[in-house]
Amino acid sequence: MQLAAAIPPDDRGLQYGEGLFETLRVQDHHAPLLARHQARMLAGCIRLGLPVSEAEVRARLDAAVAASEPGARVVKVMVTGGSAGRGYAPARRARPRWVVQEFPLTLRPPALYRSGLVTGLCCQRLARQPALAGIKHLNRLEQVAAAREVLEHGWDEGLMLDSLGRPVEWTSMNLFARFGDRLWTPALAHQGVSGVLRSWLLEHWLPGSPLTADHRPRPLADLRHADELFAGNSVAGFLPVRKLAVWRWDKPELVLSLQHTFSGLFGH
Amino acid sequence: MQLAAAIPPDDRGLQYGEGLFETLRVQDHHAPLLARHQARMLAGCIRLGLPVSEAEVRARLDAAVAASEPGARVVKVMVTGGSAGRGYAPARRARPRWVVQEFPLTLRPPALYRSGLVTGLCCQRLARQPALAGIKHLNRLEQVAAAREVLEHGWDEGLMLDSLGRPVEWTSMNLFARFGDRLWTPALAHQGVSGVLRSWLLEHWLPGSPLTADHRPRPLADLRHADELFAGNSVAGFLPVRKLAVWRWDKPELVLSLQHTFSGLFGH
Repeated sequence: MQLAAAIPPDDRGLQYGEGLFETLRVQDHHAPLLARHQARMLAGCIRLGLPVSEAEVRARLDAAVAASEPGARVVKVMVTGGSAGRGYAPARRARPRWVVQEFPLTLRPPALYRSGLVTGLCCQRLARQPALAGIKHLNRLEQVAAAREVLEHGWDEGLMLDSLGRPVEWTSMNLFARFGDRLWTPALAHQGVSGVLRSWLLEHWLPGSPLTADHRPRPLADLRHADELFAGNSVAGFLPVRKLAVWRWDKPELVLSLQHTFSGLFGH
Repeated sequence: MQLAAAIPPDDRGLQYGEGLFETLRVQDHHAPLLARHQARMLAGCIRLGLPVSEAEVRARLDAAVAASEPGARVVKVMVTGGSAGRGYAPARRARPRWVVQEFPLTLRPPALYRSGLVTGLCCQRLARQPALAGIKHLNRLEQVAAAREVLEHGWDEGLMLDSLGRPVEWTSMNLFARFGDRLWTPALAHQGVSGVLRSWLLEHWLPGSPLTADHRPRPLADLRHADELFAGNSVAGFLPVRKLAVWRWDKPELVLSLQHTFSGLFGH
């Protein structure tokens, strides 16, 4: 296990949340979604203006995965704006700082993967901010506040809405639903994190499936009519939702099939 | 000078920007606006749900000011959510972490205090997020992006607009204007940082002045009709604005008088 060094207090990641992170599921030094993590982190560096090349993003994530312990692991890689003086403006000579952390993989109980999550609606909304939407940056106070609600209510997950009350994502997972032959997951141009598992689903899995993509904004009440509601991220994979507020679902089919495909990526 | 210790990489301030900061101007261990800094930091702790008491906020800021070097100094105090495991939800046993940094006071050239700032309009907007408005939290990517624009254009400061295009604040200062006998500074219930100097001006100075307060949202075009436009924060004090995009002002009166009063707070 790699031990990340301590961070000087003048790091811009700490001071302003100037930075990005990726959390990778690794099985015996193999991260099947690695290229998508690298692509998202590079997109984030470009958006935030961090002076990091595509080659460096690739090399840092490759090295973190290679150096991880054998078995089922979670590797978290952060890159920040580095050390600088006081003030919001980036220092011309600041050099990005890389931080790697590693954890054993811990998943929710297997029963939850079959029966589904009990979820609720978070009061904390996601602000509309196109400049930061999609990327996995370090300004996460909205998610922290929402996760606090999840904890207080004893839910398994919480649904976050945009400023107009439309569903966007779960606190730490992307939001998916099946409406007949449509796979719906909202567009994330104005808020939300564009998940690596979501991009795998839309770009890799969906074209070979009988379903078509649907990214329209939907009012919350639409979800009641979904045939299946589910959640997903690249560490946990896919989980059915069996309850959202007062609505219930009891026939997970697509999501159980996706769980099987996801497990296959890791050689299970 | 106090040297802040290094921060472990699992600190929630680094991981998610869960935390707050105050930047105090100190003259020979005396910080005239200390009580207002303490009040804002406490309000931030309550808003973010950090388990910090009023007594602790007071004691930490008192101690940081007392321990500063003599002369004109800037003391920055941060409090974060502390160390915790992976995941947005706050750990039940996480203990807040305090970080103190200290710098010599550096101000813009005296000529700028008389002639005024040359400013421009930032493309980076401030998202509407009532849950985080007003407090001085560590999620500052909007300000970082805006400060980058200021640097690129060579402006002295940049004006930030809300999602509807209405002026809110400068990248690191609050926004003020005089319209006749009205002192205007926009309400900050939906976005922006509620500055300590702004609260001093509104609560302490304004009641004894011939001016009345005006906090209505104004369209950008209104600023053209301001008799004076200016900027202020608790470290720099007040600065006139002589140019915003194509508009110019050349008769700073109120702001020069406010500079005099502000200097008096520090015994000058």
